[in-house]
Amino acid sequence: MRCHRRSQRWVSNLNGAERIGAQLTYCDRMRAGDIVEEFPIVDIDSSALDAVRLLAEHRLTGLVVGTGTSEQPFVVLPASQVVRFIVPGYVQDDPGLAGVLTESMADHATDKLSGKRIRDVLPQKRQHVPVVDPDDTIIEVADVMARLHSPLVTVVKDGRLQGVITASRLLAAALKR
Amino acid sequence: MRCHRRSQRWVSNLNGAERIGAQLTYCDRMRAGDIVEEFPIVDIDSSALDAVRLLAEHRLTGLVVGTGTSEQPFVVLPASQVVRFIVPGYVQDDPGLAGVLTESMADHATDKLSGKRIRDVLPQKRQHVPVVDPDDTIIEVADVMARLHSPLVTVVKDGRLQGVITASRLLAAALKR
Repeated sequence: MRCHRRSQRWVSNLNGAERIGAQLTYCDRMRAGDIVEEFPIVDIDSSALDAVRLLAEHRLTGLVVGTGTSEQPFVVLPASQVVRFIVPGYVQDDPGLAGVLTESMADHATDKLSGKRIRDVLPQKRQHVPVVDPDDTIIEVADVMARLHSPLVTVVKDGRLQGVITASRLLAAALKR
Repeated sequence: MRCHRRSQRWVSNLNGAERIGAQLTYCDRMRAGDIVEEFPIVDIDSSALDAVRLLAEHRLTGLVVGTGTSEQPFVVLPASQVVRFIVPGYVQDDPGLAGVLTESMADHATDKLSGKRIRDVLPQKRQHVPVVDPDDTIIEVADVMARLHSPLVTVVKDGRLQGVITASRLLAAALKR
């Protein structure tokens, strides 16, 4: 257990929420920093094929992509979006075309990743990176995870990545309270 | 390897796609039905707390929820949405309130699930169920997964659930081609 002071705005008359004020002292038993997990970080300029292999072999829930120039994660890709790496662009534009691929095209789906970097196959639209502070509660972590539809969030302190929290890890921790 | 005949519309002049026509014979080495996995199905009227425990203990990527009246899945909840079960409704409406929860509220997040059924905590907005046919190619499976942001798809044949395919399983299969 650890105690710390936090500035809070006044909240009252909320269903189930108590009246609390600024600079109260909290003694919490569990915060994000207590349940952080180690997780592999893949560099944005590394092989896309190796990243897919890493996810598949370790049954990861997603990829945390970093850059050599920052200690913060650049993007977090849920596994459901990593599979997009093997979907040809014209199928992404028109899903009806997925059914007309020939055997060789469908069976060599990962060939097109050969020689490509992660940077080359990232979604064009920049995603929100799910980030929490080590001092955030498990409810705050759950809220970020649910809101960004991400099965893992990154824990960042003073601009440095501390690790991640996966959905199953979060729920396991919540069940132990 | 197995061969079958499929009706297809004509496609031409697409980048990388070949000109193919109706009723061609395909001899494919891998279809969705070849990589289907067993997966626990939770009943919509079973305990929400037990479902959370199942996901946490087995590090599942999501929950497949069924009903007693149909052999088709009712809903598939990615793990990122199962964590929403422990987020109070007023925090879902206003994320700023997550930070003002008291210790006891954040530390007993799963208490509110006690006695609740899965049906009671499902998102109000009905989700699209990710469904593929056993004859779909891995590209078709990947496309459904990516489009619905789901880390697992259900494989359904003649209205009956055959199992699921997870993103990591799909990528592992694609890498083996």
